[in-house]
Amino acid sequence: MAPGSKVYIGKAYTHQPKFELISYSEEFSEGTEDAKLEQLQNLSEDGVHWINLDGLHDVSKVDEVSKIFNIHTLLIEDILDTTQRPKSVYEENYIFFTLKMIKNANNGEFYDEQVSIFMGRNWVLSFQEEKEDVFDPVRERIYTSGTTVRKKGSDYLVFSLLDIILDGYMELMDQLEKKAIKLEGKLVKNPNDNHFETIRKNKYQLISLKKMVHPLKEAVNKLLRTENDLIHPSVHKYLHDLNDQVAKVSDSIESLREINDSHRELYFSSLSHRMNKIIEILTIVSTIFIPLTFIVGVYGMNFKNMPELEQPNGYFYTLIGMGAMAFGMLVYFKRKKML
Amino acid sequence: MAPGSKVYIGKAYTHQPKFELISYSEEFSEGTEDAKLEQLQNLSEDGVHWINLDGLHDVSKVDEVSKIFNIHTLLIEDILDTTQRPKSVYEENYIFFTLKMIKNANNGEFYDEQVSIFMGRNWVLSFQEEKEDVFDPVRERIYTSGTTVRKKGSDYLVFSLLDIILDGYMELMDQLEKKAIKLEGKLVKNPNDNHFETIRKNKYQLISLKKMVHPLKEAVNKLLRTENDLIHPSVHKYLHDLNDQVAKVSDSIESLREINDSHRELYFSSLSHRMNKIIEILTIVSTIFIPLTFIVGVYGMNFKNMPELEQPNGYFYTLIGMGAMAFGMLVYFKRKKML
Amino acid sequence: MAPGSKVYIGKAYTHQPKFELISYSEEFSEGTEDAKLEQLQNLSEDGVHWINLDGLHDVSKVDEVSKIFNIHTLLIEDILDTTQRPKSVYEENYIFFTLKMIKNANNGEFYDEQVSIFMGRNWVLSFQEEKEDVFDPVRERIYTSGTTVRKKGSDYLVFSLLDIILDGYMELMDQLEKKAIKLEGKLVKNPNDNHFETIRKNKYQLISLKKMVHPLKEAVNKLLRTENDLIHPSVHKYLHDLNDQVAKVSDSIESLREINDSHRELYFSSLSHRMNKIIEILTIVSTIFIPLTFIVGVYGMNFKNMPELEQPNGYFYTLIGMGAMAFGMLVYFKRKKML
Amino acid sequence: MAPGSKVYIGKAYTHQPKFELISYSEEFSEGTEDAKLEQLQNLSEDGVHWINLDGLHDVSKVDEVSKIFNIHTLLIEDILDTTQRPKSVYEENYIFFTLKMIKNANNGEFYDEQVSIFMGRNWVLSFQEEKEDVFDPVRERIYTSGTTVRKKGSDYLVFSLLDIILDGYMELMDQLEKKAIKLEGKLVKNPNDNHFETIRKNKYQLISLKKMVHPLKEAVNKLLRTENDLIHPSVHKYLHDLNDQVAKVSDSIESLREINDSHRELYFSSLSHRMNKIIEILTIVSTIFIPLTFIVGVYGMNFKNMPELEQPNGYFYTLIGMGAMAFGMLVYFKRKKML
Amino acid sequence: MAPGSKVYIGKAYTHQPKFELISYSEEFSEGTEDAKLEQLQNLSEDGVHWINLDGLHDVSKVDEVSKIFNIHTLLIEDILDTTQRPKSVYEENYIFFTLKMIKNANNGEFYDEQVSIFMGRNWVLSFQEEKEDVFDPVRERIYTSGTTVRKKGSDYLVFSLLDIILDGYMELMDQLEKKAIKLEGKLVKNPNDNHFETIRKNKYQLISLKKMVHPLKEAVNKLLRTENDLIHPSVHKYLHDLNDQVAKVSDSIESLREINDSHRELYFSSLSHRMNKIIEILTIVSTIFIPLTFIVGVYGMNFKNMPELEQPNGYFYTLIGMGAMAFGMLVYFKRKKML
Repeated sequence: MAPGSKVYIGKAYTHQPKFELISYSEEFSEGTEDAKLEQLQNLSEDGVHWINLDGLHDVSKVDEVSKIFNIHTLLIEDILDTTQRPKSVYEENYIFFTLKMIKNANNGEFYDEQVSIFMGRNWVLSFQEEKEDVFDPVRERIYTSGTTVRKKGSDYLVFSLLDIILDGYMELMDQLEKKAIKLEGKLVKNPNDNHFETIRKNKYQLISLKKMVHPLKEAVNKLLRTENDLIHPSVHKYLHDLNDQVAKVSDSIESLREINDSHRELYFSSLSHRMNKIIEILTIVSTIFIPLTFIVGVYGMNFKNMPELEQPNGYFYTLIGMGAMAFGMLVYFKRKKML
Repeated sequence: MAPGSKVYIGKAYTHQPKFELISYSEEFSEGTEDAKLEQLQNLSEDGVHWINLDGLHDVSKVDEVSKIFNIHTLLIEDILDTTQRPKSVYEENYIFFTLKMIKNANNGEFYDEQVSIFMGRNWVLSFQEEKEDVFDPVRERIYTSGTTVRKKGSDYLVFSLLDIILDGYMELMDQLEKKAIKLEGKLVKNPNDNHFETIRKNKYQLISLKKMVHPLKEAVNKLLRTENDLIHPSVHKYLHDLNDQVAKVSDSIESLREINDSHRELYFSSLSHRMNKIIEILTIVSTIFIPLTFIVGVYGMNFKNMPELEQPNGYFYTLIGMGAMAFGMLVYFKRKKML
Repeated sequence: MAPGSKVYIGKAYTHQPKFELISYSEEFSEGTEDAKLEQLQNLSEDGVHWINLDGLHDVSKVDEVSKIFNIHTLLIEDILDTTQRPKSVYEENYIFFTLKMIKNANNGEFYDEQVSIFMGRNWVLSFQEEKEDVFDPVRERIYTSGTTVRKKGSDYLVFSLLDIILDGYMELMDQLEKKAIKLEGKLVKNPNDNHFETIRKNKYQLISLKKMVHPLKEAVNKLLRTENDLIHPSVHKYLHDLNDQVAKVSDSIESLREINDSHRELYFSSLSHRMNKIIEILTIVSTIFIPLTFIVGVYGMNFKNMPELEQPNGYFYTLIGMGAMAFGMLVYFKRKKML
Repeated sequence: MAPGSKVYIGKAYTHQPKFELISYSEEFSEGTEDAKLEQLQNLSEDGVHWINLDGLHDVSKVDEVSKIFNIHTLLIEDILDTTQRPKSVYEENYIFFTLKMIKNANNGEFYDEQVSIFMGRNWVLSFQEEKEDVFDPVRERIYTSGTTVRKKGSDYLVFSLLDIILDGYMELMDQLEKKAIKLEGKLVKNPNDNHFETIRKNKYQLISLKKMVHPLKEAVNKLLRTENDLIHPSVHKYLHDLNDQVAKVSDSIESLREINDSHRELYFSSLSHRMNKIIEILTIVSTIFIPLTFIVGVYGMNFKNMPELEQPNGYFYTLIGMGAMAFGMLVYFKRKKML
Repeated sequence: MAPGSKVYIGKAYTHQPKFELISYSEEFSEGTEDAKLEQLQNLSEDGVHWINLDGLHDVSKVDEVSKIFNIHTLLIEDILDTTQRPKSVYEENYIFFTLKMIKNANNGEFYDEQVSIFMGRNWVLSFQEEKEDVFDPVRERIYTSGTTVRKKGSDYLVFSLLDIILDGYMELMDQLEKKAIKLEGKLVKNPNDNHFETIRKNKYQLISLKKMVHPLKEAVNKLLRTENDLIHPSVHKYLHDLNDQVAKVSDSIESLREINDSHRELYFSSLSHRMNKIIEILTIVSTIFIPLTFIVGVYGMNFKNMPELEQPNGYFYTLIGMGAMAFGMLVYFKRKKML
């Protein structure tokens, strides 16, 4: 394929993607759920316009809107490739982000969805894979007069979107930490093979999270370092806040990885323990009965002349002697803490 | 939640937080334990004013004082979120720190409390979670005339607070090192499962300490690198001293982590040793008695024609022979250092 | 050998290398499959000229064309040494790359071929080891009028070549990831010695891939950082795209390495498990039968006076007693989850 | 404690610390073993003056001399705290170092002593914990006319002191390397539990050495990077030499750490080996005798009709058969390389 | 010892070191095998002069020539200390290198020799430990008219020397890689204790190679970064070539280290496997014969009333029953893949 080819790479969705257009300023706000292309072509100079497309599988839609906002073909390729690595790109008239959003995080299970965001002077263009949307709280704040987002420009809107996405990571981290604590408890009490399976799955989860968050960290850092007049100075401290959140998520991933290692160790230690216990049982039983079996073997021999056998109480003395031997060995093992 | 939402995230406390106001200069010092908002609004231009709030769960209090000192809502959010990552922020009229304080460190057990500090031209604003306060030595020095803190400005006061917090870390490190040495002694003498539990808990403690200290290191470094006229040049060497202390704590955490790894190894080595010992016992007992049992089995056979059985001393010769065999094998094991 | 010696180091090929010359501009495009040296010496000033040599083993060919384009002897040495580390070099009138191309990637098996590319003002010179060529899609685009490559200069052509090479890496990564998932499934179900062999081979593959990609990352980074008027500003964003792709490949290698470690662990864990199972069998059999064998030994003794032996039902009572014992022990092992 | 508190933290020494004053220039040199404070207060402008205090436990002495040379209280605190991390500080009129000195290094055993050095325009102030002094060679060179130290200023004197301290590290590294080679030999021949103890102790030693040398490296690097007119350009190459030495020590520590890891592995490998050997013995004895014991058990049964028992040579045939079986199994084990 | 002491630290050689003087320019070249000091003192301004000393143990020789070329005493100390860490130093009138040369690399065995090289405007001074010389190819090229070395200055001569030294490293790496592949083959087929010994020795070899190459990398990097008019711009690309070679060697060391780790794992895996096999034998033999021995024990009991014993075919039925049992268990083990 030629570079800049417009091909969708991702899950097969069947819903019909629509453009949602929300226009607002300090004074007003209005939204259209299924905006037409003409509307997008004729945005007013006043206020902020947020266009959100809830599906990438209809390549023509992505293409059409990209033409309106003059998006570079390479970036269209990035939007359409849902395996794209998180990154940020600076162009003269817009800033571009693509990153992974955490969806449906329940009990530490989740999947990721790609979000791409373009921020222009007074417009924001966002692309998602699915219909169901985590951006609803932002919409609500836009429709409520007097909120910060209404007072500020497109830069603050983008920050709000990124903030909500990062909240998803934060919540997932919380869930993963709680899950790790639960797993720990089970491993201490009664470890089994399923736990090893879980530990391994957790490891893979953390590897894939690291692959999502590490380049995101780079992208946010780049955003902070690059001078750009699209971002108002008053929004800078919000970006620093984002940066702190990414750092916190990244710290959490690192410590979860260490805890995962620790769980694996705990599992193997318990395997080892169990083995020791089993071998102890074998040793105790063998060590007590093998010598006794030897003794009874002695008196089972068929020699003509074996004086003990003629003794009237020989049998009983032998039984008592063997009992004493067994008892002595049990005491020995008790002292060695093997029982 | 919208960014900048004022919500307390932390433990549920029930005490009524109060503002403590301490005003001082080289000539005078006076303190009010439960200052009213009006007092805080009308601070004199002279001297240094330290306002300390001993509780974050009453959000309205935090909000009120923030308005007086013009604190950005994002920072109010940081103060109220006790899971906040340590950081430092520079604003035009103040510097902001948030970090973790070590509380009740006894025998290596501790919990952390979040402290947030704002430093303005002639005022310092500090926020703590709990009533009980580790800053008493600073108060004492302020109330004593002639001390360094009385001669210097708000920058030195902040340094004194950070210094006391770091002393807490240093003391904890000392305790953890002593505890590690004790654990080592026990592991060498008589390791058991509880020790493995302890090793694992220590590891988690060190992971969480690293999560506290690593960003603190960044924050102090940033403080040293950033030019800021709120900090008097004469206070700079005190900040370098802080930096050295953080580096020392960070070094200690790293070496404790290595020692923790070493303890885990020691534990597993002892498990292995124990296993070896048990299997040795099994091997010795089996190797001595299994051949003997075979011999007595031979003379327990019921063949018609077995000349040895007819020998008058056959039985005794057999016993002697078996005794010699057992003795030979014991000597062999002794030589192989298995006994 | 003196530095700059022109000696081919690589596989022995027998085919006759030929120069392929493709000249194009927005208006026209024409190709010659076996171009003569005179043609190469008399390239027109208009359009872009791409000369591709499909074999390095004929040193004279490499030497001749190098003279025409004024290539430094040290770089000729690099072209001819197929064990050369990927790198990029800047000269006044050209930029030089040498890197590894992934060939015949099927089921995660592949071999690498060295490609060297020189980019001048309006010419591109590429050297490959083999005849079979992965650059065909670029040729096709050149021969098609209206494509981006036709509209742009030599810089875009080089980008297109590098892009195709990186696509090879990306595809390989996909295959390796799929192979890793398959291996995982097999390891969980029924691990055997061949799997350990596979794990080890995968590790070596990843080591060699890392050795190819790591310096490639450096080379592309250098390309981005260095100011050079051979590269048109409009091509810069294509280079950033390349950089993102290399980063993605590099991330994948790292995570595959972690997954490889995880597989090794899984294998060893299964070994351990199998061992435990075997020792459990031994323990159960021994622990049940050794005491029973002792009991039958007791009643096999030849003492004159053994009252039990005279009991008419002694034999049956003994059998029942032993059966009860065995049953009791089976219940015990069941409870201990050893059965 | 207030920052800058003058409290001695370290071992309890009982000797009476004295000031030693050595004054010298190219023309003369004179020393006073127990100099009075007045002498120190009235140093001539000519020549270089080296004041050495051989004890820190008498805080008043440290305090007095610090006042004369205008030492900052924070640095006095650093001098007195023998757990201080190595560092270097630049003040307008002096440079300050504090570092650890290797004392009594014999057979790889050693302890560290803190040395603090101040370097002014024409004076050097050094603080040690103990009386016994490693600086004697420098004294000797000062008292000998014509030596380099006599021709140069305070900067060269400080370099000479640091050089001697680093020689201590170098020698220790040599000893540790020799010790490691010896240990290796013992581990290969006949490893025992004491060796594991030694390996662990060596690890701790290397951890503490790393804690001493790593910040020292930073301090020397800082010295090289900082422009300072207290250091004459001609002394700069001596500082580079110091830097090389620290780097060499640091390299040695790293490779000793790797060797230590290797020793641990060797130890565990030998444990494993021993285990294997023991289990082999058990297996051989059991595998030979258990089947034989079964056979003799068969002919010990009391069935009425057992034709073999009536055979006149049945017993002898059985013995021969069992001998053949045992021999066969021994051959089998020999082939499997288990004997 | 005072810093800058001229003492030889290294192996005891007995040969008489000689100065070799080679003077050349584009027009002429002449060599003297045993040059006198007077010759060295009176070098002509024209051409390049290469003085090579083949032994360091005669300190006076090193000292004499150093005086002629104004070498700093600290550098003389570095030349004489054959344990010196590789480094490069810039002085006003010369550049100094000291590094390790690979000697007698056969089958991956080698030793290192220290080489020190000074490069002045039109002279090069080289110091080696031994008589036998790897620089012969350079000599040959100098004596051949028309070669590059004859056309260029002292900078190119130094490059040629460093290039030959690096070729030694490259060849060694090739040998080590081949050796590693061979070892791998042996480990897969039939691992034994000697292989573990080899793996450990290889590890130490790689540690010591890393200690040689890592600082060499730093030194060559420094050479590239430092502006210096002793090096002609046209020689710069040769230095970049050197840099690439060092990077390649360094990459190889890293990947050999990973392969070494892999070998160690392979060895331990095979140990584990062998153990498993042995324990399987033990388990199979025990599990089959212990129950059978119990049965024959039952019929060896001496109860008066045992109906089976009276059965005429009891013995044969018992034998058949036991045979069936043994066969059943063998089938079971076969299914469990233990046979």
